[in-house]
Amino acid sequence: MKILHSLPAEDGYYMPAEFAPHSGCIMIFPHRRDSWQFGAYSARKAFAEVIRAISRSEKVIVCARYDDYDCAREMLPDCVRVIEMESDDAWARDVAPTFVTNGKTLRGIDWGFNAWGGLEDGLYFPWDKDNKMARKLCDALDIDTYDRRSFILEGGSIHTDGEGTVITTEACLLSKGRNPRLTKEKIEQQLKNNLGAKKIIWLPCGIYLDETNEHIDNICAFTAPAEVVLAWTDDPADPQYAMSQKCMEVLANTTDAKGRAITVHKLPLPKPVAITAEECSGLDNMNGEPTRTPGERLAASYVNFYIANGAVVCPQFGDDNDGRAVEILSELFPDREVVGVYARDILIGGGNIHCITQQIPQV
Amino acid sequence: MKILHSLPAEDGYYMPAEFAPHSGCIMIFPHRRDSWQFGAYSARKAFAEVIRAISRSEKVIVCARYDDYDCAREMLPDCVRVIEMESDDAWARDVAPTFVTNGKTLRGIDWGFNAWGGLEDGLYFPWDKDNKMARKLCDALDIDTYDRRSFILEGGSIHTDGEGTVITTEACLLSKGRNPRLTKEKIEQQLKNNLGAKKIIWLPCGIYLDETNEHIDNICAFTAPAEVVLAWTDDPADPQYAMSQKCMEVLANTTDAKGRAITVHKLPLPKPVAITAEECSGLDNMNGEPTRTPGERLAASYVNFYIANGAVVCPQFGDDNDGRAVEILSELFPDREVVGVYARDILIGGGNIHCITQQIPQV
Repeated sequence: MKILHSLPAEDGYYMPAEFAPHSGCIMIFPHRRDSWQFGAYSARKAFAEVIRAISRSEKVIVCARYDDYDCAREMLPDCVRVIEMESDDAWARDVAPTFVTNGKTLRGIDWGFNAWGGLEDGLYFPWDKDNKMARKLCDALDIDTYDRRSFILEGGSIHTDGEGTVITTEACLLSKGRNPRLTKEKIEQQLKNNLGAKKIIWLPCGIYLDETNEHIDNICAFTAPAEVVLAWTDDPADPQYAMSQKCMEVLANTTDAKGRAITVHKLPLPKPVAITAEECSGLDNMNGEPTRTPGERLAASYVNFYIANGAVVCPQFGDDNDGRAVEILSELFPDREVVGVYARDILIGGGNIHCITQQIPQV
Repeated sequence: MKILHSLPAEDGYYMPAEFAPHSGCIMIFPHRRDSWQFGAYSARKAFAEVIRAISRSEKVIVCARYDDYDCAREMLPDCVRVIEMESDDAWARDVAPTFVTNGKTLRGIDWGFNAWGGLEDGLYFPWDKDNKMARKLCDALDIDTYDRRSFILEGGSIHTDGEGTVITTEACLLSKGRNPRLTKEKIEQQLKNNLGAKKIIWLPCGIYLDETNEHIDNICAFTAPAEVVLAWTDDPADPQYAMSQKCMEVLANTTDAKGRAITVHKLPLPKPVAITAEECSGLDNMNGEPTRTPGERLAASYVNFYIANGAVVCPQFGDDNDGRAVEILSELFPDREVVGVYARDILIGGGNIHCITQQIPQV
């Protein structure tokens, strides 16, 4: 594995869309007891269901800590590849490499990772094991890696159409805990240089109380070139109402890198989901403090789905809108089966199905 | 990865010879401070030289512990693949899978490993990390694995011509610390069932004071079908003299699986090599006891070479016979470059170049 210091865009590399064909998907076996209730037991079962759904149409590689390898191997289907790797938590989207290609070979980008805000407003300390994963995953996949550790970015804070357009949120990328010494223009340049993008669309915000500083991947996602889904509520009393409206306004008044207007499909949100006292009782404290308090609203959204080669794996919350979300996605992805996975046990950790996956593009 | 419980021979699988083409080679980055002097610093440099020599003609995969990954990545050439994996020590020959093939696909055999003798006369405790490596390596390589953990065997205790003959030593395979409840016939059957062998040639012993209970790979190795090298001394005062004589007697009076007589090439031993007080001072104690004492004779032998696709990597000891060993091997391997590597810092750990490598056959 070569560690590269050049710019992917100048080398002729770009990030393909998630809906383009994959050679596989990277995930991490959950273990963190202050993130996942009951010693990560419930999360492991939910992750395993996601893994089974994805592995029917693409190869899944699951990173497991030394101590968890045997458990992961036993819980997961034979077709899954379990590899040993230390991690601080289980958010492959944010700690695995972002893959770029020139159409012939694949390379990985190793962004800096600081647990969504470092000492400013990060979610745990230390985060060194997570920060080392992208490079090691490139090594395990036998591909070269771009060293971009000096630029803080998580995979969940960007979406691309693979045709020159990247969509992100100001709330996250301009947050004080990421790259406070870089202007918006400099950050935009980083995205262009590294992802091979021509145009960055900045939504102002994401999902209410999303502790990633409102990652794009919980509120808005490309389903095709010039087509997105946007998390939506019609309840003006919900703080999310104004947030989704503001995002809609941007999307309705912009064009993509190719000058096309963007069609926005509203994806209804579930009713607000709050963590229960019983669920909180299953979480270890972090440095003596609880990581969640009973009644705390969680950032539930159907937009946090994963597009596999043959399926769209979509979170379900036991909400009246579960079926409607599957219906809308089925219309938008007519060639893929939309598989709903009950994902409350993933949501409790702070993210959802998209956050725990990272696609490896097919070249 | 499937975990298989059937018999390789019945499935049509066999172990190819080391001199057949490889797709790569597995090694482990050394770290154990009671095995390798000066915090494994000297050994790392020697291992790196072996890795460079092998990596010129085949892909090398190096397993490094989480803590050692960065150091390994920096010390080793770009073309080497470094993967994270916990280990107790660094003897890939004995803890990596033995690979078998049916000519189309590759599978790994996951033997039981108990640190060369378990609680009877093993060399360290615990050995659980080593014992788990073979299965994890198969997973990392995305191949299926035979669960043979109930049978204790190290890769260094067997050699094969890939044509039905396996050569081993009674001193090791019949030792009390391996499989004491199995008769010699039962052990022979295990080798046949698992390696696809038709005939087992039993040498009585190996190299004097070889702490593996005298592994075959330090005294005798196939260089071609029906041709072996045998470690040799002409000094009747050396305890090795009688040992090599006894082995010669067996080899001279047997035939291989195909009924061919075996040509034996004598490979001279270096003069006895003893560890110095200064070297001992660089080794941590194990459970409060030194692992080596000054003046202790080490089991030095030129037979402990590795046959790579384009090279034979052979240990050198700063001995008068160094050049002669390279000369003999150059004659026996006319299509390969014989590369001598000064290997005293590997020998101090208790083995040599063959012991720290495990070939992955090409299929």
